Order: sequence, then C-alpha cells, then structure tokens
Amino acid sequence: MKAMLINRCGGVDVFEEATLTRPHPGPNEVRIRVMATSVNPIDCKIRAGAVPLSPAFPALLQGDVAGIVDAVGDGVTSFAAGDAVFGLIGGLRSHQGALAEYVLADARLLARKPDALDMVEAAALPVVALTAWEGLIERARVSPGQGVLVQGGAGGVGHIAVQIARAAGCRVTATVSGKEKGRLARRLGADEVVYYRDEPVASYVARLTGGRGFDVVFDSVGGASLDASFAAAAPGAQVVAIAARSTHDLSPLHGKGLTLSVVFSLSPFVHGGSLARVGERLARIAQLADAGLLRPHIDPHTFSLTQVADAHRLVESGGAEGKVVVRVGV
Amino acid sequence: MKAMLINRCGGVDVFEEATLTRPHPGPNEVRIRVMATSVNPIDCKIRAGAVPLSPAFPALLQGDVAGIVDAVGDGVTSFAAGDAVFGLIGGLRSHQGALAEYVLADARLLARKPDALDMVEAAALPVVALTAWEGLIERARVSPGQGVLVQGGAGGVGHIAVQIARAAGCRVTATVSGKEKGRLARRLGADEVVYYRDEPVASYVARLTGGRGFDVVFDSVGGASLDASFAAAAPGAQVVAIAARSTHDLSPLHGKGLTLSVVFSLSPFVHGGSLARVGERLARIAQLADAGLLRPHIDPHTFSLTQVADAHRLVESGGAEGKVVVRVGV
Repeated sequence: MKAMLINRCGGVDVFEEATLTRPHPGPNEVRIRVMATSVNPIDCKIRAGAVPLSPAFPALLQGDVAGIVDAVGDGVTSFAAGDAVFGLIGGLRSHQGALAEYVLADARLLARKPDALDMVEAAALPVVALTAWEGLIERARVSPGQGVLVQGGAGGVGHIAVQIARAAGCRVTATVSGKEKGRLARRLGADEVVYYRDEPVASYVARLTGGRGFDVVFDSVGGASLDASFAAAAPGAQVVAIAARSTHDLSPLHGKGLTLSVVFSLSPFVHGGSLARVGERLARIAQLADAGLLRPHIDPHTFSLTQVADAHRLVESGGAEGKVVVRVGV
Repeated sequence: MKAMLINRCGGVDVFEEATLTRPHPGPNEVRIRVMATSVNPIDCKIRAGAVPLSPAFPALLQGDVAGIVDAVGDGVTSFAAGDAVFGLIGGLRSHQGALAEYVLADARLLARKPDALDMVEAAALPVVALTAWEGLIERARVSPGQGVLVQGGAGGVGHIAVQIARAAGCRVTATVSGKEKGRLARRLGADEVVYYRDEPVASYVARLTGGRGFDVVFDSVGGASLDASFAAAAPGAQVVAIAARSTHDLSPLHGKGLTLSVVFSLSPFVHGGSLARVGERLARIAQLADAGLLRPHIDPHTFSLTQVADAHRLVESGGAEGKVVVRVGV
C-alpha cells in the first residue's frame, strides 16, 4: 500500500512516498481503508518540529481520518468490517496518523461517520469539532439564550464553533476579517458579524450587548485577539481559547471574575487523558451533523495523497478558504 | 449611635468618629446590631482609593458583619428580630459597610450565624469563605480524592480554602512561607505542607504527585505564585486565582489545557450579580462550620470600633496572624 512518510521534521519537502505492507490490527484496534484525511495547523507544526510533539520516525502525520473499517482486532465490538467511520487517530509521537491507504486506529478514537456528510466532509471534522465541542459544551457549558462571541468565526475551528453554539440555542456573534468570511459566518448561522479590523471592541460590545459583554467568548485566534476577548467578556463570563502561547495582562479576568479555559484537542494523546472521550464526543458531533446543524466548509482545492506537501503549503500560507482535505480513497 | 465614617479615600487617618441617627430598615432590609466586623485586604484598598470601588461619602467601610437582627423592613420573611446573623453586606459604592453600632443590610446578603462560632469568628468568615467556596466548590467543582494545592495556605482566604477542600474530601497540600504558618496549615487539615521558599515547584510536584501535578490549584497569593500554580497544575487541571492583576505567560495553560478561574467576592455588588447567591452560599458555609469542619483563625490583637485605623494598619503591615476583627458590640 502507498503512504506518505516523514523521516525528519522540516518544510513541506520532508514527505516521502513509500510502499508499505498493509498493517494488521492488534487488540482493540481497527484497520481503516482511508478515504480522506484533513490538514490542521497543528499537523504543519508537528511536521515542522515547531511543537514538542514530534513523532517517532518513520512517521505518518495527520490525525483526522474518514474511511471504511477493513479489519478489526481482538476485543473490538463497536465496529465491524464495512462500517464507515471518522475519527482523530493520532499523528504524533504515540499514535500514527492517516497519510496512508490503510491505517490502524484505536477503536475508542472513532465514531460512525454521519450519513449527512460525505467522506471529505467527515475527514475535515474531527480536530476542529472536538476542539469547539470541548470548549463550548464541556468547558463553557453554554446554555440556550446565552450570547456567544466567536473570534475568528470563519476559521477552521471558528466556523464549527459558530454552528455548535447556534445548535446549543445561543445567540452567536462572529468576528471576521473581511466580507467574504462575513458571508460564510452568516450562512453558518451567526446572528451578527463583526469586522474586527474596522470596529473597536467597546463599540460592538455596546452595540450588541448593551455594554455588558458576552456570556461566552470562544477565541480561535489568540495573541491580541485574546486581549480583545477579555475586554468583550461579561462579568463572570467564560472565555475559551485554543491558542494561548502568549503573555497577557490578566487584570480584566480579575476585575470581571472571568474563567479562561484553554482547549488542546491532542491533549489525551500527550497527557494520557481518556481516549474513549474522543469517540464519545465524535458520536455526539455526528448526531449534530445528521440533524443538519453542523457541516464543515471545505476549501475548493483538491489534493491526492501524494500531493500532501501542496496541501500543507496551502494551510501554512493562510490562504485556505475552509478546511483543506487530502483525498486518499475518494 | 456611634460610627466610624470616611469622607475621603486615603491612609488609615481618614476614619472619623461620628454620631448618627439609628437607621430605619427599608423594604427587604434588616437592621443589625453589629457585634463584630472583620478587615479584609480589599477594605484597605477601598479605603486607600486603590481600586475602582470607591464608596459614596460619607461611607461606612467593611462588608463582613456578625450581629443580632434588631428590626426588619417590609417583605423580610427570612429573619426576625433577635436572630443572630452573619453576612457580606457591602462596604463599597452601592452598599454601606459595617463600621457602626447599627447597620442596614439587604436580607439576601445574610445567613444565620453558625452556633459553633462566636460573633468574632462569624464576622471573620464572609469574604474569605465566600471566595474560597466559590473558587473550590462552584468554579473548580472539587470532588473527593482530588489533589488540591492551596498557595498561601495559612493566609486569610487560604486557610479557609484548606478547610473547605479538606471537607470536600480532597487531599490538600498547602504552601506556606514559614514554620509557624506550616503548623497552622497542618492543624487546619492540610495533608502536606510545602515551604515554597525552600523547595522548587518541580521538586514538590514530583514528591507529592509523582510529577503529574495537582488536579486543582487554589492560588490566594498572585504574582509569581500564579506562575508556580500553572507549573504545579496537572494536565486539564483547574486553577483558581483570587489575585490576578498581573501579566503572565499563558503557555502552560495552553500546553496542559488548563482552566483558570478568577474569583472576586464583591463581584455581585459591582456587576449586578445575584445578591441572593451570597446568602445561599453563607448558609452552606454555616453548615460546614456547625459540622466542625470550618473555623477561621483570628489574630490575637483586639480592636474596638474607634480603633479601626489600627486594625487596618495591622492588615496592611502584612504581620497579622489570622483574620483581624473589629469588635463593636462584643
């Protein structure tokens, strides 16, 4: 079978085409015939060696996968050959990723693919949806009627956060940089769109919340955006961040008694958290998709397995218009 | 009746003795014959004008009170004349404090004084216990068996946090600066005591948690201690801070997916939060005290109402050995 391996960290040129023996599933593992896998910014950082998650070489990157169960190991009762599944299988040191025609995965990291989504859409969902789900549902515990601000509401995680907050009955405001992204955010269910480059925080907080601030702020951008999120939060609000490797004055958290939760979707792999939670969350996410409440936006460029370097280049350029997917079996 | 007013913000010399008419309770208010009121650091900051909570002059400072209900206004059904109560009644712009022989209070801000505590002890409890309660029980949602680190475990809020965490079934480690405070923390129920000046974070995290970190960190100190708290937290941990007007690198929050909650006990007064929550929490706190699980440590110095300046001076000196209480009717 064909695979795209890396044997060192570096630029997009580190991918190497290889022909490997089809792997055999061990206990509690399934073998997946990969249909598609998507590129997340964390995959580019792992490839570049920019985060302390470097894989053991030779390595298969990219945790997001959608495909067909092809064989199951001992002890697997939740899936059988022929099942369409999606999941976050790894792509870092402890667990190999999805850049091959057939991959092995811990069965706890998978859920049944939602019928409403095709394989490309299902492969685009795991990392971004797990991140938004954990942040909004488990950490911030959003409830119907709350005002939710999504910073970067048209981005990879942000556009999913808009839909999950909307599905939870919240009133959603999305910040975006330009008109096209504003249209996307509105189409995905944002009640209000803020062009953050054109309007100060105090202005839209006054305009949209009567000056009180938002009950929940989901920040998918980080850096200066996180300071804006603290400023836009109501007293006692929940702020969720997915990028927080930066230095901030915490006075606004103090004055307003805020809670700041940082979500890192690969945490279960890195810190020994519950892998079963991954599959459980994905099953809930699939329900939302099948209810017509959640659909990832896919960049129109298409990439085959051997074109993964180009897919990484597009993600790193910042110019992708939606999730970037590598098509393997579709 | 006698009162100690301030007519401007400033040093401890701003207190002025005054003779006022005994006030009449309005709707939903009770009049309390004050037995004692305690000094919290926030009271000194309000007096000094160091925080944006300056009262309307002439002002009665100090929110903590214990006393006897003396009269009730229309609509008050929860208390009657003769009831022994304690509460957090204000001491900032919107609600006057307790530095008088008789004071008015919104009935929602009070609870029945625990039988197990005398008036001095009850007056020492509201601000510190409400802060520790909200942080540990409501924000961090501590559960039995969790490892809780209390930074500043012999301080005003910290020594109450040790007892509340212990009562919740947690294994409690307290950091302290010296041997005497270490003995106090142990007497209050700390399972382990860390002398933070003598032992690096990595050392006690390895020694007491096998390197994994604490499930919950309650930081009553702030500043550099907060960075130590981030370092001492386990992946996915809850960090509670009560002093966070400072600038911090949030990378540890990112890497470990932490949640940081900042608790500010006066928030309901400042931001229009639920005043009823204050009384409800105090009722729970009183249950703990009556169960023998919670008792404030009181500084041995005694101060009368007219000696409030000396009481503030002691708190500001940093040399208090427990909560500093002003005795009014006892």
